[in-house]
Amino acid sequence: MRATYRDRIRHAVLESRITTPERAASLFRNAMTVGMSGFTKAGDCKALPDALARRALEDGLKLNIMTGASLGNESDGMMALAGLVERRSPFQADPRLRQEINAGRVMFTDQHLSETVEQLRAGNLPPVDIAIVEAIAIREDGSIVPSTSVGNTASFVQQARQIIVELNLAMPLALEGLHDIYIPGDRPSREPIPLTTVSQRIGTSAIKVDPDRIAAIVLTDSVDSPSNNLPPDEQTQAIAGHVVEFLSGEVAAGRMTPALMPLQAGIGTIANAVLHGLVESSFNGMTMYSEVLQDSTFELLDSGQLTFASASSITLSEATYRKFLDNVDRYRSRLVLRPQEISNHPEIVRRLGIIAINTALELDIYGNVNSTHVNGTHMMNGIGGSGDFARNAHLSIFVTKSTAKNGAISSIVPMVTHVDHTEHDVDIVATEWGLADLRGLAPRERAARIIDRCVHPDYRDMLWDYYRRACAAGGHTPHLLSEAFAWHQRFSNSGSMQERVVQTA
Amino acid sequence: MRATYRDRIRHAVLESRITTPERAASLFRNAMTVGMSGFTKAGDCKALPDALARRALEDGLKLNIMTGASLGNESDGMMALAGLVERRSPFQADPRLRQEINAGRVMFTDQHLSETVEQLRAGNLPPVDIAIVEAIAIREDGSIVPSTSVGNTASFVQQARQIIVELNLAMPLALEGLHDIYIPGDRPSREPIPLTTVSQRIGTSAIKVDPDRIAAIVLTDSVDSPSNNLPPDEQTQAIAGHVVEFLSGEVAAGRMTPALMPLQAGIGTIANAVLHGLVESSFNGMTMYSEVLQDSTFELLDSGQLTFASASSITLSEATYRKFLDNVDRYRSRLVLRPQEISNHPEIVRRLGIIAINTALELDIYGNVNSTHVNGTHMMNGIGGSGDFARNAHLSIFVTKSTAKNGAISSIVPMVTHVDHTEHDVDIVATEWGLADLRGLAPRERAARIIDRCVHPDYRDMLWDYYRRACAAGGHTPHLLSEAFAWHQRFSNSGSMQERVVQTA
Repeated sequence: MRATYRDRIRHAVLESRITTPERAASLFRNAMTVGMSGFTKAGDCKALPDALARRALEDGLKLNIMTGASLGNESDGMMALAGLVERRSPFQADPRLRQEINAGRVMFTDQHLSETVEQLRAGNLPPVDIAIVEAIAIREDGSIVPSTSVGNTASFVQQARQIIVELNLAMPLALEGLHDIYIPGDRPSREPIPLTTVSQRIGTSAIKVDPDRIAAIVLTDSVDSPSNNLPPDEQTQAIAGHVVEFLSGEVAAGRMTPALMPLQAGIGTIANAVLHGLVESSFNGMTMYSEVLQDSTFELLDSGQLTFASASSITLSEATYRKFLDNVDRYRSRLVLRPQEISNHPEIVRRLGIIAINTALELDIYGNVNSTHVNGTHMMNGIGGSGDFARNAHLSIFVTKSTAKNGAISSIVPMVTHVDHTEHDVDIVATEWGLADLRGLAPRERAARIIDRCVHPDYRDMLWDYYRRACAAGGHTPHLLSEAFAWHQRFSNSGSMQERVVQTA
Repeated sequence: MRATYRDRIRHAVLESRITTPERAASLFRNAMTVGMSGFTKAGDCKALPDALARRALEDGLKLNIMTGASLGNESDGMMALAGLVERRSPFQADPRLRQEINAGRVMFTDQHLSETVEQLRAGNLPPVDIAIVEAIAIREDGSIVPSTSVGNTASFVQQARQIIVELNLAMPLALEGLHDIYIPGDRPSREPIPLTTVSQRIGTSAIKVDPDRIAAIVLTDSVDSPSNNLPPDEQTQAIAGHVVEFLSGEVAAGRMTPALMPLQAGIGTIANAVLHGLVESSFNGMTMYSEVLQDSTFELLDSGQLTFASASSITLSEATYRKFLDNVDRYRSRLVLRPQEISNHPEIVRRLGIIAINTALELDIYGNVNSTHVNGTHMMNGIGGSGDFARNAHLSIFVTKSTAKNGAISSIVPMVTHVDHTEHDVDIVATEWGLADLRGLAPRERAARIIDRCVHPDYRDMLWDYYRRACAAGGHTPHLLSEAFAWHQRFSNSGSMQERVVQTA
């Protein structure tokens, strides 16, 4: 039976602060910095985005909006189109917001997800004025119990002058106890973050706050938006197969046990599919230390191969989400949700020795990765946590299908048009054609291996040709600057990177 | 009075292993991986490089050579020209070796300096067969006391099957006690690195080793090569002035005290000049947590403004080096030398909240930095520790003169031809013209500020023109791919990036 708000507001005075979204929205002034809960559509606010967008339409309100990561419920697009969003950070994934960003109408700051609150607390970013936080309960001492994500919420709450709580009655109270809230101390005299195992709890199960700063409580009653991962297909299964085979080789070589090392997988179809592929593997006793838990995590928990999963959010398909919410008690002892600063922290990622699996939008023959910019100019989503993990991982694996747009685009190009991850941070590349182990190789060797193992046959000769002519011109990282982006320009002009369809002027 | 080797080999059996460089060189077999001491010319081996190069000339010996960073005594060039060097990592700075690398005759792996031994211990790189280590002494238990650098030596020694010690009689025994050797534990169950202050000692003052693995001891008697930093000039003084003014603003805003945060400065003329500029400032009680200590460190220690400096090596001009060696006792309580894994460790850099000052070879209007590749193809030195620091710093500052080659090259270009540091990791840019504070800005705002504040007037209008036309084409990070490298191509064709000197065909 669904708990009412009376089970969820356990602080006597705070009950009187229940109000409407409209009244809560009246607290905002122009140019304020607002910290919102929400990470990859999980645990985002359900009511205030609408109410604030209406204010933008009515009186021209403009805000600097920070979140954990992307919001659900199409909130990001709706707020952007209403003209509410002057500035946005550190991540988004909404087609309409993206359009505003690429038109230069919204100033978007794309950040490593572990760094946003570090920069905030250091005073490198303007302070949060108001925090808006989805919660499942407010405890006797006023402390706030988040829902399906932690994200940047704890630090937003710590810094904000005022806090608005969205108490979501649709989220089961059984989620209480899932969270582990830890905020690193001030620098330069900070203590080590004491986390040494994936399952360790180092903080509190709710966000501590002076109840006086909770200015309003709004009741909501709707669940998170579902993930839009596509199901595994032949190509993603092939990629997963190559990664599983590679990891099996690492186990056989004695470099890791069948429990592997703690796993991270980026949000999205391909990384999710690679984890899904582990269900068929003989690996056992695995753990995850990731930023978001997707359907594949629950498959691995259900199969018994995964013993514990740590992340900052849970983002699932509709069916898996339902199963999770109905069975939180069954999963709770094997899950923990942490602030994204901790789930992604370089200190912890390096300490644990994570296997990081992230998706490349495009990569070049030397293994530099573009995760974000279509044609080097147009933002897709953002770098997210991929840099936090790839830089500090035991093994940094990037996966992509070898082509896009029915073969008109090769995902592997002479030179990427935008660099999010330099070749220093890319150990392994895998496409449906194969896997390139780049560890310890010099750039010329990396290129030869990537072209040989990972490139689609339709583009392989073209890349060999570019690479050989570049080598003739010399250099540690041979390139022909006059041709480095020729493939992208050909696609823009002719609709395909392939040479045979070049249109002459 | 100079100590003899009898004061320096305090283990009874080991004295019998003293041999000639030639005999020690006979231990090497083709294709072995060799770990050599040496970091930015400090504490490198003085005898074995010659002896090994002779073997290359005599019997074609080829080795995979790893170091801390660059070697002195022109060893890197000499070994490369002899054909000894099949592979080389993780950093170099020798014109002749560079030539071999860029010709594709030496396979060079350019690595974040904190990562080399992590990758080695993880089995991601082939293991070290023989370590060659400069030392000032071998203790009663066989443990090795390094000289003017620690670099990667401790992990090389831990892993190598055989160790050759170069006992350098020219180095004062007073250096003993300067070092703090700590190697992080195995993953995934590693403990936090316990270092929480710049001056803290967390390890041992010598490198522990089973004396049986010390296969040979060679006596040497020559000091390190001097640094080749140029003295401050009008432009570097202007850059230093802008940085000092900016930091003063941070103090005035209450974001740091006059002790600032721990300082890191990259190797080289400009970063050294910026630190030199702090001597004239009112900052006091400063500390350094850097990878290499240069002349400026000793100026700040002498002025009393710097209370403590931690690094992995000491690389000085001839005059300062002499002063240091003659007065080690006076400096020792304010200095510590650590493994480069610790001096550069993301965990520690992030924990301490470092101000990182590094030099850009070129940077683009969005603040992406090329630290390594001339024209995007030809390796200069390597990324070194700049990535370790820039990614994890409290403030990441990049400095460069606005032009090179008497104005024929603008250091700020439409798009960098190689990315070592993405815009995510660059907070501040300074040239002699001014400083751009990029914190919290979106790419379009970053571009406007960099062009306005940092670009040489001869190139400012050209960059505004590029930027405005790129904006008209749209995107989060506007670019014109057909022109992105036009400046570099113009320089190749006409000898200048300036438009007025373009030669028509």
